[in-house]
Amino acid sequence: MAADRPGATTRTLAWEVLPGGAHRGEDSLASEEPLEIRLLHGGVRHPVAVTMRTPGADFELAVGFMFSEGILRAREQLRRVSYCVDRDVDEQQRYNIVNVEMVGLAALDLAPLERHFSVTSACGVCGKATMEGLRLRGYGPAPDGPLFPADMLRSLPAKLRGAQRLFETTGGLHAAGLFTAAGDLVALREDVGRHNAVDKLIGWAFMENKLPLAGHLLMVSGRSSFELVQKSLAAGAPALCSVSAPSSLAVELAREFGLTLVGFLREERFKVYSGEERAGLA
Amino acid sequence: MAADRPGATTRTLAWEVLPGGAHRGEDSLASEEPLEIRLLHGGVRHPVAVTMRTPGADFELAVGFMFSEGILRAREQLRRVSYCVDRDVDEQQRYNIVNVEMVGLAALDLAPLERHFSVTSACGVCGKATMEGLRLRGYGPAPDGPLFPADMLRSLPAKLRGAQRLFETTGGLHAAGLFTAAGDLVALREDVGRHNAVDKLIGWAFMENKLPLAGHLLMVSGRSSFELVQKSLAAGAPALCSVSAPSSLAVELAREFGLTLVGFLREERFKVYSGEERAGLA
Repeated sequence: MAADRPGATTRTLAWEVLPGGAHRGEDSLASEEPLEIRLLHGGVRHPVAVTMRTPGADFELAVGFMFSEGILRAREQLRRVSYCVDRDVDEQQRYNIVNVEMVGLAALDLAPLERHFSVTSACGVCGKATMEGLRLRGYGPAPDGPLFPADMLRSLPAKLRGAQRLFETTGGLHAAGLFTAAGDLVALREDVGRHNAVDKLIGWAFMENKLPLAGHLLMVSGRSSFELVQKSLAAGAPALCSVSAPSSLAVELAREFGLTLVGFLREERFKVYSGEERAGLA
Repeated sequence: MAADRPGATTRTLAWEVLPGGAHRGEDSLASEEPLEIRLLHGGVRHPVAVTMRTPGADFELAVGFMFSEGILRAREQLRRVSYCVDRDVDEQQRYNIVNVEMVGLAALDLAPLERHFSVTSACGVCGKATMEGLRLRGYGPAPDGPLFPADMLRSLPAKLRGAQRLFETTGGLHAAGLFTAAGDLVALREDVGRHNAVDKLIGWAFMENKLPLAGHLLMVSGRSSFELVQKSLAAGAPALCSVSAPSSLAVELAREFGLTLVGFLREERFKVYSGEERAGLA
């Protein structure tokens, strides 16, 4: 990723698999990058939060977050919002740090800040730093094999939906499923938070001594984010499938560690963004 | 909410509005409650995170979260997982605190914990405490009026979708829109994170001196969570609409502060969970 200001979408190449065959083509992803929000007051910097966001409207995001959290209350407290373009900041990170300069803040008002850092587990404030951080934490490449045939993959959404008891009654829950390479459902967990659904599944596998998840795949009902790819890698799964779109950083991280990342998985078609050899495509 | 162990779904009453008329009936919501995860090691408690989750598989969630974050690495480090049922813990909170007891942990391993607390802005570890916390932070009732006619509400999803430039190309972004009471779109923001999309919108309104958002409504493309209702209240909006389902705590908070909460908003029908007088229903 260049030092250019990141855009809201990211171009990439992906395989599209239809019943009649597969082809590789251009694809557009929603960009995902970490943003660090900093409060400047009386010449002192206070970290407020790191959030994974789509670049664009970054100043609005920083101000809105600080307002929602009760840190910024009135227009006159806001002096200036700017990107951190200090020379000591790496070029790649320049547009991922926003300084919100406030005036007339009582010391008391800063207390809640300590509870908020940090929102995410990002180790740096650009995608590359974040991935390096994971490597330092001991993340290795996804395990080799197995092969996931297209027919098996296409059968997963119906199985996941069919096993989602709570979704049927509430219409409002995310699901994460663990499947064997043959497409058999091993376990399913649901939650209002999609990260929680995956954590429940991984926690179950941990307690059942089933980690690492080599020879299996994870499937989620929603989108694939950086954090979901990270959790899949932590659990040692070779593949993550989702019913909807992956983000740019999900694809980047999956490629970095060789995880098979499948998106838009439906009965008729799906897209493969990374690790296509396990889908028999390379 | 009683001191019973919370369930994965919550029964409530909601209005369903169809072209032919409205009726009030039973409805089932996905439960949302805060969960505090604590690490016990050598007789000392360390707060790890507070996350909004659907009750059920709480031990798995706590263990999976700690594994994904790199705190818990091997099965033999895990001694015991239990609910915090100390007598000094309020009865309502007992099933919202999970203790993960670990053994053989080097002091070094605890360092990352400080970066992770806390994941959410919850002030307590049950829905009631969370709401009391908001009141203490100065949250007041949603403003009176205006009336939101059913025809206007039904027109919103198409307007939101029509204005979502990035979704069209990527298929993977959440949207938040600000509408007038007449149903005119004022501003729209998109992001991979639905909370970010709302924060961008509120930050824009803050910088444009348009807060509080009295006489307007917010609409989001996904589900309504506790945090989205909280942000709507912080911005002084009288109503929050979503294309999909609200959580139990979103409904509870909306009722507590008199916000109009509309869910499953489609062209033909929608449901009203709170503040139904603004939808002409009471």
